[in-house]
Amino acid sequence: MKLYDGGRAPSPRRVRIFLAEKGIDIPKVAVDLGKLEQKSKSFSQLNPMQRVPVLELDDGTVIAESMAICRYFETLYPKPNLFGRDALEIAKIEMWNRRIEFGLYIPVQAVFRHLHPAMKEMEVPQVAAWGEANKPRAIEFLEIMDHELASHRFIAGDRFTVADITGLVTIDFMKPAKIELPENHKNVRRWHAEIAARPSAGA
Amino acid sequence: MKLYDGGRAPSPRRVRIFLAEKGIDIPKVAVDLGKLEQKSKSFSQLNPMQRVPVLELDDGTVIAESMAICRYFETLYPKPNLFGRDALEIAKIEMWNRRIEFGLYIPVQAVFRHLHPAMKEMEVPQVAAWGEANKPRAIEFLEIMDHELASHRFIAGDRFTVADITGLVTIDFMKPAKIELPENHKNVRRWHAEIAARPSAGA
Repeated sequence: MKLYDGGRAPSPRRVRIFLAEKGIDIPKVAVDLGKLEQKSKSFSQLNPMQRVPVLELDDGTVIAESMAICRYFETLYPKPNLFGRDALEIAKIEMWNRRIEFGLYIPVQAVFRHLHPAMKEMEVPQVAAWGEANKPRAIEFLEIMDHELASHRFIAGDRFTVADITGLVTIDFMKPAKIELPENHKNVRRWHAEIAARPSAGA
Repeated sequence: MKLYDGGRAPSPRRVRIFLAEKGIDIPKVAVDLGKLEQKSKSFSQLNPMQRVPVLELDDGTVIAESMAICRYFETLYPKPNLFGRDALEIAKIEMWNRRIEFGLYIPVQAVFRHLHPAMKEMEVPQVAAWGEANKPRAIEFLEIMDHELASHRFIAGDRFTVADITGLVTIDFMKPAKIELPENHKNVRRWHAEIAARPSAGA
């Protein structure tokens, strides 16, 4: 199998960190997002959504979408568990994973894509007003996250899960989007420092 | 337990259909989205994201996010299986569920929220240019979906899964968003007719 990977972009990084936490190493194929290789004809045949990451199995089966790839490996290699062990834990991890995606990742992505000059060719049309509208949304969500992390070491409870990985790549995505983490969000800062210090964060 | 529900909105409907497919009946509390009840102080304490649906367990534990609620019930009541049985099926269902969410649901939602006059108080600011930019995205995704459904009875393979539920509520969400399903998408039409005819679709 091989993983079509996309360098510093947050979604491929999410999968790389997940695999590092599992201790799984698979061959990677670099897709140059700067050259819009993900929109090429050959890549579009692999994934019509024109996005990385994509996992290609040895028989040619394609699995796209970061969370689908992670769930594939979670099922094959259940340890360490990153998606939850019982109904309530599974639900809480999914809840926080999705809250971060919808409440933070998508707003940060909108700010980056609609306001960053480098995204002009990728995001057509760039709608600056939409980028601006998403800045306060990201900041609002960080308050919710900070409140949650005041009473929990990790975002979905007392242990590291896939929701923390989603949180890490999203917070780090704020840098190219030029959104600053407010100084007063001490719990988010404490949590981020801990997750970013794990060896997997460098994957 | 009880489910905070939101009438005709697509996300609460997704959970209601899921529960109907499982044969699960739980008490529901109506949240009036027209009166912005989901943004009230009391509801915000339940779910700071100010969204329905929300599941409240008897001990007060709260599970928000449609897919988190569905996964909670999938784990407790595994039959009929709607999220996949082995690694590859789990991955394919997750892939299509997310493709529909990101490729169709979010664009349709953007069209609805940013262009529909009734959403003026809920979506602040309404960015008409962003609504317009999402119309062709929804149409583009429908082509991908139609292509997939040319060779599969259901969206994630040969049996009904949660991805079909996501597809149904999203296609039906196109109506208030005033996006028409192109006439030539025969496979999507055939598939939609079959899913919409299931008793669960009325839930």
